[in-house]
Amino acid sequence: MERTSLGDVSTPGRVAAAGEGISEEELALAARNHGLPLEALRYDVTPLGLHYVLVHYDIPVVDTVGADAWRLSVGGRVRTPLELSLAELRALPAVTQRVTMECAGNGRARLSPRPVSQPWLVEAVGTADWTGVPLRTVLAEAGVENAADGADDADGAVEAVFTGADHGVERGVEQDYRRSLPLPVDADVLLAYAMNGGPLPPQHGYPLRLVVPGWYGMAHVKWLRAIELTDTPFTGFQQAVAYRIRQSPDDPGEPVTRIAPRALLIPPGFPDFMSRVRVVRPGPVELEGRAWSGYGPVTRVEVSADDGRSWTDAEVAPRGPHRWGWQAWHTTWTATAGRHTLTVRATDADGHTQPLEQPWNRGGFENNLVQRVPVLCR
Amino acid sequence: MERTSLGDVSTPGRVAAAGEGISEEELALAARNHGLPLEALRYDVTPLGLHYVLVHYDIPVVDTVGADAWRLSVGGRVRTPLELSLAELRALPAVTQRVTMECAGNGRARLSPRPVSQPWLVEAVGTADWTGVPLRTVLAEAGVENAADGADDADGAVEAVFTGADHGVERGVEQDYRRSLPLPVDADVLLAYAMNGGPLPPQHGYPLRLVVPGWYGMAHVKWLRAIELTDTPFTGFQQAVAYRIRQSPDDPGEPVTRIAPRALLIPPGFPDFMSRVRVVRPGPVELEGRAWSGYGPVTRVEVSADDGRSWTDAEVAPRGPHRWGWQAWHTTWTATAGRHTLTVRATDADGHTQPLEQPWNRGGFENNLVQRVPVLCR
Repeated sequence: MERTSLGDVSTPGRVAAAGEGISEEELALAARNHGLPLEALRYDVTPLGLHYVLVHYDIPVVDTVGADAWRLSVGGRVRTPLELSLAELRALPAVTQRVTMECAGNGRARLSPRPVSQPWLVEAVGTADWTGVPLRTVLAEAGVENAADGADDADGAVEAVFTGADHGVERGVEQDYRRSLPLPVDADVLLAYAMNGGPLPPQHGYPLRLVVPGWYGMAHVKWLRAIELTDTPFTGFQQAVAYRIRQSPDDPGEPVTRIAPRALLIPPGFPDFMSRVRVVRPGPVELEGRAWSGYGPVTRVEVSADDGRSWTDAEVAPRGPHRWGWQAWHTTWTATAGRHTLTVRATDADGHTQPLEQPWNRGGFENNLVQRVPVLCR
Repeated sequence: MERTSLGDVSTPGRVAAAGEGISEEELALAARNHGLPLEALRYDVTPLGLHYVLVHYDIPVVDTVGADAWRLSVGGRVRTPLELSLAELRALPAVTQRVTMECAGNGRARLSPRPVSQPWLVEAVGTADWTGVPLRTVLAEAGVENAADGADDADGAVEAVFTGADHGVERGVEQDYRRSLPLPVDADVLLAYAMNGGPLPPQHGYPLRLVVPGWYGMAHVKWLRAIELTDTPFTGFQQAVAYRIRQSPDDPGEPVTRIAPRALLIPPGFPDFMSRVRVVRPGPVELEGRAWSGYGPVTRVEVSADDGRSWTDAEVAPRGPHRWGWQAWHTTWTATAGRHTLTVRATDADGHTQPLEQPWNRGGFENNLVQRVPVLCR
């Protein structure tokens, strides 16, 4: 008999066998969902089309002009449920935030054994200027019951659940993409309708998305259509099953939240097409890059040219006015003939630092293992 | 002794062993150079950021404003060598062409055994409106020696060689990306400085690129900085070594030129995150997509719901005013419960049709094997 259940086409997460090459399924995800080409770290704000993209299901079609056009609904434990059009949202006082966003799965494909999912190396990052309405403004307009003062109240709202328009199946569970945030929400959380001064591109969430500065990308719900204020913690798939740090399948795990620190080097010199080994001349080589953390400013970037045996401090630019944007760093390396591995390591003000050994977990999240760039000097 | 030659980091092309999974090198290329998410086939003109991208080396930095700013140089067998600024090019009479562009390596990773290079599946395509100056206009201004009438003249120019600003190593050969076209050039070949009404994005060739409608992407030299008119055929790496259809390494091969026909289906229903199997309900399902060929209009698109055993004709929109843009097609499929494989096949006016068996060649070029979309109907 023909098997026709979702479970036949949508299987649980798995970890690849030792030495197992990347599968066609993983390749298809890599081809759809792209990273930032590392030379593009040179731009303070990532040009359109170069910012990393992750779409779990498909980019949905959203109609903002027809008779049944898109509205943002705000409901649940609120005094005044709302149905806001794009024009109404745009009419509210707006804020622009420069935010560095990273996918929680960045680094996953460098883990051994490799969790089989979106196979990022180090490039799942981007920085954009997001314009929109502070979420707090809209929640205040709706009048969240008992959330404003953060008081503990068994009858009051404890979380806001955000539903996107993208629909699909994942690990056997049919769903709309949905995530929650605890109340009260940070002042910096935005309902964003513009990216780098223009309307959101389709792949970045048109017409509206959540932006949660300092958190990994899964929190920044795209194609946002509904906010529901709930009096119980949300336990949907993307909150309780996915995006958890686990060692074994039965482990409830710890939730993925803020972005762990990372520094990336703009690969110096010029590359080999296939291997991406960098070619430089002997002598002084300017090394530059970016560093960021969701926990606080990056206070130290160390660079090694001997694959981690010795380190020197780079100069790190202060955060400046953009609290949530990456910080530039630079140093000079004197290259000598031969093969070298450049490594960079960020530390933030809270003392979090990048590991030199892989921080393995079953979902492949938060792998901020130091980047390693192979260089040939001749 | 430490090996420090380019040949150690930049090895010849190879073909993967049977059953060999995708390597980390191939994955790195997939993460940098992305394809069109197939749901985005719904847009007549591909939104910025969704058009496929291939960058052989790095996106170069090009300065168009400083004292030593970028110029397009036109030299070699011309009467009047030129150095044109972006402003001068923009001042010439402009043309806009809607062009469907595809990477010559599209389909490569579906070949068995798999040539090891940029590992495309079917998504390396995009359609854009390119604005610029016809190449013929600039060549006429420079006064190509003996090319205008196409006369055979041993002393005259026979080709135009196009040099980009991107520099790297490929299969052991250090180079600027460089390709040629035979003279006389087609009237439709453009020196394009705008894409979809705006300046070229960095990854699409800012400030100027060649657009050769109907040819695969390797011909559309990006970050164009020089045109040289030569009296001997160009035999550089990207012309004589890469982009050749070969069966064995020593085969001189046939050059890759015009785009072979292809139809793509917008995957129906909704997807499973990992497997990309599509889920649909029983009953009528609208199937839509795009089809194109560099040899002429697509005259037939056939659709099979039983993995190629039986076929029906879809309705194909005519080419219309956009001679080089893809054509829309559609049909209705009556889905019944169970697993199905949808396949689509294009045929053009010249009689070229997509193969049902893989057209293997060592470089993995022009693999226009029919797309196969797995569907679960429940």
